[in-house]
Amino acid sequence: MAFSFMKLFMPKNTVFYELFEQVADNVGIMSKHLITVMNEPDFDKRQQIITQMEDIEHASDMLTHSIFTELGRNFITPFDREDIHYLASALDDIADYIYATAKKINFYRINPNDTGMQKLAEIIHQSATEVRKAVGELRNMKNMRLITESLVKINSLENQADDMYDMSIERLFAMEPDAKEVIKKREIYQAMETATDKCEDAANVIESIIVKYA
Amino acid sequence: MAFSFMKLFMPKNTVFYELFEQVADNVGIMSKHLITVMNEPDFDKRQQIITQMEDIEHASDMLTHSIFTELGRNFITPFDREDIHYLASALDDIADYIYATAKKINFYRINPNDTGMQKLAEIIHQSATEVRKAVGELRNMKNMRLITESLVKINSLENQADDMYDMSIERLFAMEPDAKEVIKKREIYQAMETATDKCEDAANVIESIIVKYA
Amino acid sequence: MAFSFMKLFMPKNTVFYELFEQVADNVGIMSKHLITVMNEPDFDKRQQIITQMEDIEHASDMLTHSIFTELGRNFITPFDREDIHYLASALDDIADYIYATAKKINFYRINPNDTGMQKLAEIIHQSATEVRKAVGELRNMKNMRLITESLVKINSLENQADDMYDMSIERLFAMEPDAKEVIKKREIYQAMETATDKCEDAANVIESIIVKYA
Repeated sequence: MAFSFMKLFMPKNTVFYELFEQVADNVGIMSKHLITVMNEPDFDKRQQIITQMEDIEHASDMLTHSIFTELGRNFITPFDREDIHYLASALDDIADYIYATAKKINFYRINPNDTGMQKLAEIIHQSATEVRKAVGELRNMKNMRLITESLVKINSLENQADDMYDMSIERLFAMEPDAKEVIKKREIYQAMETATDKCEDAANVIESIIVKYA
Repeated sequence: MAFSFMKLFMPKNTVFYELFEQVADNVGIMSKHLITVMNEPDFDKRQQIITQMEDIEHASDMLTHSIFTELGRNFITPFDREDIHYLASALDDIADYIYATAKKINFYRINPNDTGMQKLAEIIHQSATEVRKAVGELRNMKNMRLITESLVKINSLENQADDMYDMSIERLFAMEPDAKEVIKKREIYQAMETATDKCEDAANVIESIIVKYA
Repeated sequence: MAFSFMKLFMPKNTVFYELFEQVADNVGIMSKHLITVMNEPDFDKRQQIITQMEDIEHASDMLTHSIFTELGRNFITPFDREDIHYLASALDDIADYIYATAKKINFYRINPNDTGMQKLAEIIHQSATEVRKAVGELRNMKNMRLITESLVKINSLENQADDMYDMSIERLFAMEPDAKEVIKKREIYQAMETATDKCEDAANVIESIIVKYA
């Protein structure tokens, strides 16, 4: 509270915007790669993309780490410290679950030619794209309508992901006779559904940031 | 720290008490419905109750959302901002896991006529009732003994839930030959046990709030 | 921010260092017991050690509880309140997952004579030992090189744990025909891998504390 009041008299530290935008860019790229992975029938070609995703994921970890380091270094932050912490964590989680999903496909030698997995990958990509848009608008906070539109879309995409997850799990238990395969595929569907939950977490933090500066 | 000191000179914002009480009321109602679900043999009648629970869960989400919005809007809060955040999240999680449990029963077409599930539903309801009592006392903080009694009960109920969970899982692996059924029922027991963990989380936040104002 | 600035003029409250060191000591002892559990072929002898671990885990819970109580009581804290909260939670989680792992071995009547479980127990113990070292250095923050070395080791141990987890899961799905056994052992590998994640969480908080006081 003291914070918010004092911030009115403070210059903004732009390093956080740059770092958040870079992480959000990486999340967007990874979500695009995830769609490719889910539509690539060849194991080795999939592995090449997954390896690229791993590199991007590591780069994102470094950026997230820099955000926390800057948070420790900077007395002045553009918005509340806890919001910076939550947003950085949410974006990091999105990247983690997207990469984990792709990795598990080859790790478990799953055939990704699966409607549920392919549709969920599309939803994750759409949601990551909206997260990137919203993060990009934080810098000036001029176009509130645009941010709000993205946040609404992210929430509705999370609901679509829930329904797709339910349908996929229902189908999995009904159609897959091998319980070990059920365990593997369920783990992949769960990671994908969680990725969209984390996009919603990011949207919620962004909303709380907007509210404070409205 | 600066906060706590300044708060001594500040009027209290009562909107948070009202919102917390409404969420806690909904959690209590949902926990009562969960007992009904676990004792209703008919799939369709169960579905009617589960649909009612879904509506209450959505209403609670809106209330939780209002708490976070108010947290952003208000310079003055009745207790530390992070405690308001943690308590709102804990209550929201209790509602989520109670609804998730009920939903999974019909989703997986499980017969809830199961001692473990029925006993866990009773424990969740008792715990949610104590959470509601403790939340209600935050407003005046006059009856510390009453709050403390509720917190102690919530902790002991969480231990009872752990034991009931262990017994249920042990029985499940011993008695259920179909591994796919094991996966489904284990998921339900886990959601129920987690619901009591979240009640304990709420109790821990409430305790930390009391300590600061003792 | 206001905080950090004011802290420059404040005496340090040493009770937090003592409590953190005691919790970290308990985590170290529990991780040593976990190795013993994984190398003890006799069920009853294992149970004796697991019961000892349960007592230490309860003692740690009390200490963690005291940290949160002190956090509420103390206006003056040696480092940021949220860092104290995160570090206490991380150490508590390490203890929880170490105890949960040991408990599940006898609960599921698993034979711990398993390369993956034994190697993961070694990694957890090494990581817990480095966490204890780093926590011990927080008191004076004189030997930054020593702390940094521990943090680097904890991160590399977490990567080793990930690889060992992957190898164990791959082997489990390939070699174990009984899906119910797969579920049980997978749960144990997951708890062990999570224990090392929580050590990394502790390392991350400690790093953020150091950064602020560098």
